[in-house]
Amino acid sequence: MASAEIGVIGLGVMGANLALNIADHGFDVAVYNRTEERTREFAAGAGELSSKIIPTGSLEEFVAAIRPPRPVIIMIKAGDPVDQQIAALKPLLENNDIIIDAGNANFRDTMRRFEELKDTGLTFIGMGVSGGEEGARFGPSIMVGGTEASWNRVSDVINAISAKFNDEPCAAWLGENGAGHFVKTIHNGIEYADMQMIAEIYGIMRDGMDMKAPEMAGVFDAWNSGPLDSFLVEITSKVLATGDDKTGKPLVDVILDAAGQKGTGRWSAIESQQMAVPASAIEAAVGARSLSAMTGLRAEAEELLGRPDLGRFEVGGNAAALLEQALLAGKVAAYAQGFAVMAAASKEFGWNLPMPIIAKIWRAGCIIRSRFLDEISEAFTKTPDVANLVMTPEFSRIVKETDTALRTVVAEAVRKGLPVPALSSAVAYFDQLRRARGTANLIQAQRDFFGAHGFERIDGKGENHGPWNMGN
Amino acid sequence: MASAEIGVIGLGVMGANLALNIADHGFDVAVYNRTEERTREFAAGAGELSSKIIPTGSLEEFVAAIRPPRPVIIMIKAGDPVDQQIAALKPLLENNDIIIDAGNANFRDTMRRFEELKDTGLTFIGMGVSGGEEGARFGPSIMVGGTEASWNRVSDVINAISAKFNDEPCAAWLGENGAGHFVKTIHNGIEYADMQMIAEIYGIMRDGMDMKAPEMAGVFDAWNSGPLDSFLVEITSKVLATGDDKTGKPLVDVILDAAGQKGTGRWSAIESQQMAVPASAIEAAVGARSLSAMTGLRAEAEELLGRPDLGRFEVGGNAAALLEQALLAGKVAAYAQGFAVMAAASKEFGWNLPMPIIAKIWRAGCIIRSRFLDEISEAFTKTPDVANLVMTPEFSRIVKETDTALRTVVAEAVRKGLPVPALSSAVAYFDQLRRARGTANLIQAQRDFFGAHGFERIDGKGENHGPWNMGN
Repeated sequence: MASAEIGVIGLGVMGANLALNIADHGFDVAVYNRTEERTREFAAGAGELSSKIIPTGSLEEFVAAIRPPRPVIIMIKAGDPVDQQIAALKPLLENNDIIIDAGNANFRDTMRRFEELKDTGLTFIGMGVSGGEEGARFGPSIMVGGTEASWNRVSDVINAISAKFNDEPCAAWLGENGAGHFVKTIHNGIEYADMQMIAEIYGIMRDGMDMKAPEMAGVFDAWNSGPLDSFLVEITSKVLATGDDKTGKPLVDVILDAAGQKGTGRWSAIESQQMAVPASAIEAAVGARSLSAMTGLRAEAEELLGRPDLGRFEVGGNAAALLEQALLAGKVAAYAQGFAVMAAASKEFGWNLPMPIIAKIWRAGCIIRSRFLDEISEAFTKTPDVANLVMTPEFSRIVKETDTALRTVVAEAVRKGLPVPALSSAVAYFDQLRRARGTANLIQAQRDFFGAHGFERIDGKGENHGPWNMGN
Repeated sequence: MASAEIGVIGLGVMGANLALNIADHGFDVAVYNRTEERTREFAAGAGELSSKIIPTGSLEEFVAAIRPPRPVIIMIKAGDPVDQQIAALKPLLENNDIIIDAGNANFRDTMRRFEELKDTGLTFIGMGVSGGEEGARFGPSIMVGGTEASWNRVSDVINAISAKFNDEPCAAWLGENGAGHFVKTIHNGIEYADMQMIAEIYGIMRDGMDMKAPEMAGVFDAWNSGPLDSFLVEITSKVLATGDDKTGKPLVDVILDAAGQKGTGRWSAIESQQMAVPASAIEAAVGARSLSAMTGLRAEAEELLGRPDLGRFEVGGNAAALLEQALLAGKVAAYAQGFAVMAAASKEFGWNLPMPIIAKIWRAGCIIRSRFLDEISEAFTKTPDVANLVMTPEFSRIVKETDTALRTVVAEAVRKGLPVPALSSAVAYFDQLRRARGTANLIQAQRDFFGAHGFERIDGKGENHGPWNMGN
């Protein structure tokens, strides 16, 4: 009876696809859904994989069908439903059974759940899964957090169902408790930044260079054979090439410019703030989505303030080549920030996050998969203890090579009223980083003036105060 | 015996100064400190105010000295100590007595404490106090959150000790529970942004225009008679004019460029994220402080990447006038963002925050006090329901008038490698806001492509999906 290698609770699109993926790799999988009808429907539609799928009508039956210690994947709506599902499972499971939350949980909830299950004999895995519906079915990138023992019980299945890059599974155990969901959160933050920078470049071409969607599709397609080679650039090209049946226009031209968000980008920005590690590209991307959703305010503001159309975007020479370089430079900033946030969190939570491995498992399956991530994994493999991605030989070279392009594009966009919040945050990031003598000395002086907060001197340790009242 | 109008617990610099301020306005004030020695020392040093001060040696004695219903100000280290102090007071206080936390609490703690005291008969006030030591002694700006009844009991004292602007007290009841501490948090976020923008302008003058501190002092001093007239610009001038006894150099030149932060700026950025209201200027300022503190990394990055000194900052014409206008424009963005975050929080928490009054009570006493805030209070008084400060006639005019200057300064700074994270965030904010047709249509298309998230069309309501697989 207990033949299943693993179980999946929740047969929405993601859960169903994960279960099919597991079956496809030769593992028996028990499945359960809140409504039994959905379970039957799913099993009936599984075709030749149905022999590997064990549909169950109750949690008792579900648990009994899995080989102990039982790994149980929960793939349901994040939040309270997960806590309720855990509560329902707890009395049915036995020592060493493993509850795996594969949803988009906030890692702080994962930390809490891990703690709550600590003395029950059960263990908990928070598992970040990226790649959308397609990825869940044919190979996602999988970020695992939990005990190493629980990982060892499930690693065969998880590695098998994950995406592959050069035959290496894009799945890994990243650390205890919340490590997997934290890394998934930062993945999504980087994804926001990457998408926002592409949108800024698109805006420059559309509004500053009067390019039409099919023409831009060609540019992005060409970029997809160079250093920007990535899933996001590839689909940008495809999106721009798609027509609208109703109007005959490019489809992108009839889509409302109000972006949705499901919270992970925002969590990513908030956790960066908590770590006191700047993630300005992610912040700019989240902010841009929020502003985009304020369609009424933007229409009124354009009316009242005038649209800042200040002429054509002119950089002289090969504009497309400059834009490509600027986008590459922007990506370096976004990824450098994301990895820096993970390094800080790794210290704070004692995870010992393996940066080269995180880059490796993002090379396929997930939304930000790219050649770029292969280069990051190489850079971190060679210099695992580097303080920031831009300090590796490979990426410091890219920063230097793309510097003029990034500056030129941002300055010209700023002059011409073309919004570049994320790209300009990248310039500012590099310019702050590359300046050994910054301007915070003035801020320290002000703080000491009004709040007696003290300052250090450049010529000696220790707290000093200024003679401000006598100063003037 | 019970003659005191109010009591103060905690005789550190801030608490002591508040108590002296209260006495100075003719009110009897009971004081208590954890160590009785400090209480005696304080009372002994109070000079001619000592007749108004009632030093007490125990909490029982302290409580007995105050006229019921008793307002008790706690001015101690934020966090656990406040909870401990409340726990110690609770058994000694009676119905309708009021515990007032005047420290720099996170407003979420204030919300919790307000709830915890709800059914005890006691009430709680979270009171934001800005103005540093000087303000506490001679008139701070005071932001009060709690029940209106509890405010009525203390308003005489609080109004009396607050700063005055045109004889109006810079103190007000802003709403229930966490309203006061929330507004104080955003005040501090705006303060961060304001200081950062000043530092960026300073950096342009120092590193791009080779100006020396005394010369810059003159520029800021001149600006303090124009639209930038403010405490922060005034002290910037004073700071820059101050010399260092040890080296004979300007003091600012020997201060380490590593800024400290105590958390309120970060809270402000986090709460903006929670509200999904962009506060990019605040985020840029917090990020700049964090980067400034990474002195080792910056030194190494300058070494490896090269300092981006790309020539003199050249704008042609009157550079100082352009910088003044750019700074003014940047301030508009920072304040517009801060007020927008407060408007969102006001809805979320049901506070009904009075924007014109918030601007009014910031006109004197606090760190960001300025002529600018008088203009904001006027603008909000005339159009209280405006969606964003930049949509008021007064500030839309400023945005338009300063637009070229802001663009010119940011573009030139970007070209020359001078870091302008906050000022460039302001350009991006305006440029996103003023564009009715943005670029998030591309983001929605991408999201639908990889995650089937759906999009709206510009020609009709409802969720649509693209025919992406056929698209290319």
